[in-house]
Amino acid sequence: MTKQRVLTGITTTGTPHLGNYVGALRPSVASSRDDSAESFFFLADYHALIKCQEPAKVRQSTLEIAATWLALGLDTDKALFYRQSDVPEIPELTWILNCVAAKGLMNRAHAYKAAVQLNEEAGEDPDHAVTMGLFSYPVLMAADILMFNATHIPVGRDQIQHVEMARDIAGRFNHLFGETFTLPEAVVDDSVALLQGTDGRKMSKSYNNTIALFLPEKKLQKAINKIKTNLLEPGEPKDPDSSTVFQVWAAFADEAETARMRREFENGIAWGEAKKQLFELVNAEIGPARERYEALMADPGEVERHLRLGAEKAREYSVPLMRKVREGVGIGPLG
Amino acid sequence: MTKQRVLTGITTTGTPHLGNYVGALRPSVASSRDDSAESFFFLADYHALIKCQEPAKVRQSTLEIAATWLALGLDTDKALFYRQSDVPEIPELTWILNCVAAKGLMNRAHAYKAAVQLNEEAGEDPDHAVTMGLFSYPVLMAADILMFNATHIPVGRDQIQHVEMARDIAGRFNHLFGETFTLPEAVVDDSVALLQGTDGRKMSKSYNNTIALFLPEKKLQKAINKIKTNLLEPGEPKDPDSSTVFQVWAAFADEAETARMRREFENGIAWGEAKKQLFELVNAEIGPARERYEALMADPGEVERHLRLGAEKAREYSVPLMRKVREGVGIGPLG
Repeated sequence: MTKQRVLTGITTTGTPHLGNYVGALRPSVASSRDDSAESFFFLADYHALIKCQEPAKVRQSTLEIAATWLALGLDTDKALFYRQSDVPEIPELTWILNCVAAKGLMNRAHAYKAAVQLNEEAGEDPDHAVTMGLFSYPVLMAADILMFNATHIPVGRDQIQHVEMARDIAGRFNHLFGETFTLPEAVVDDSVALLQGTDGRKMSKSYNNTIALFLPEKKLQKAINKIKTNLLEPGEPKDPDSSTVFQVWAAFADEAETARMRREFENGIAWGEAKKQLFELVNAEIGPARERYEALMADPGEVERHLRLGAEKAREYSVPLMRKVREGVGIGPLG
Repeated sequence: MTKQRVLTGITTTGTPHLGNYVGALRPSVASSRDDSAESFFFLADYHALIKCQEPAKVRQSTLEIAATWLALGLDTDKALFYRQSDVPEIPELTWILNCVAAKGLMNRAHAYKAAVQLNEEAGEDPDHAVTMGLFSYPVLMAADILMFNATHIPVGRDQIQHVEMARDIAGRFNHLFGETFTLPEAVVDDSVALLQGTDGRKMSKSYNNTIALFLPEKKLQKAINKIKTNLLEPGEPKDPDSSTVFQVWAAFADEAETARMRREFENGIAWGEAKKQLFELVNAEIGPARERYEALMADPGEVERHLRLGAEKAREYSVPLMRKVREGVGIGPLG
């Protein structure tokens, strides 16, 4: 394998926010333009069904996330960009991997164990409200990865275990049926800051403290104005390192501008002024993409066109690999 | 729903034997010719992968079972006859059903519980050697059934639970996403005899007491001669009801011939003579199909041609239903 093959999926629930942008979208789009690696980006809509049973929300989120990636300049000539559910080989491979994946492996998955713990604390049956989707999603994730022989999987620390499960399942398949799958590696980039939300905690939909990435300008300004600050008056020195305003600033500004704002904080910049500058900075970076985003949201057919092309390219990989897998396990055409 | 829709799958492991013929194949083929119901027959090769990790065996068994059904006169104009793995909508539906199927339901599946019990008795981890395939196969079976809105599922008593699980999963899906699936019913026909094997126990591959359905004539004769009998001499009265020879006879003979043989037993027919007559009876029924079977086994392309046509017909059902399911849950084309 000469080139790294990097695979990233985003589950199609929710609206992309600044935290997603800084932590995942911006670096992904940058890497899609990097010639030293092949990039695979996909909309994980089968995964969305585990968490979300509201079809309109899944559909809306799929459109928003796809439009976001395209608006941010994902290079769809260099990178593969597709919707998971356009690749029928993925659920098929999931089933075949089920037949080699140990159930004991799934018993130890963090997400499942966390659900069991919550149930036990609440005095419920350990598997209360746990679906087979939640329980077996590491197998689907293994299929997502192995289907394209991806080598490098950028993940947060909480997802390392799933990449290890994919390695384990791939190794077991290769052992039983002959060398078929590349063993993937998790790539954790601790330098990517987790952005704080408006209340100072990690920005996350579950805390209801997010700022949507492509808010209209006025709303973005309002949202930034609502970032929680302390009661220090203009002129009083402020601690940049405990301030969400400064932290978001640092995620958007270059080094010189970050140093300047640090001095402004020490010199007692007014919160209103700091937020005004923050809005201008964020808006300057995001503004042009927002226009493209709004145009794409108004034209879902154009988004769909990109996804169709992406699916065609993805299937150039998945169809031949699946043929090999089917031959390997003994199913498919006779004679 | 005006017509019953009857669905039967056979897992593609092993070679069809007389027990399969009497218990499943012969009645299935008869029902394929019945105009009052629509019949769906499929080769369950995804299920085979749960039990069998020898590709050559899965492939051989798929050919043998398909050739058997065709040789026995399955009416492929009236009935749908297809290979499970030719219908990519089935594994896709399996994943979507995973997302509504309770894990607790699978915890209670007989086959899984039996595996756990064996492990516990052996002092192993409860999930030792249990794969996700074994654990989640009731979801695949639900997809097999619901994909075609089958109404009636002929099963043995040990499989009733799986049809109930399919009902449960279908009901849950319909509740969440709107009326989509027909609730299937298990049909248990207790009048179908379980054939005894050569050692007097139930004929089953796991007891190594089977007689393959399409043994060449000489070998069939040998196999019948090896059926275990007692040491009673010619002229001594014999108990028909405890005799495998008589039981197999009854499965092939009409009423008058069964009554005659009962009298022969009471009159002390020699075992050799009873077996000779049994061979002639079985061979007369099976002989013509055996010739067709041998011709098909020598021409896998012809079997494949039937399966291709069957897959096309099956997908006339599965593709539109899957479109509806995808719309229901919120995945698929944008705009």
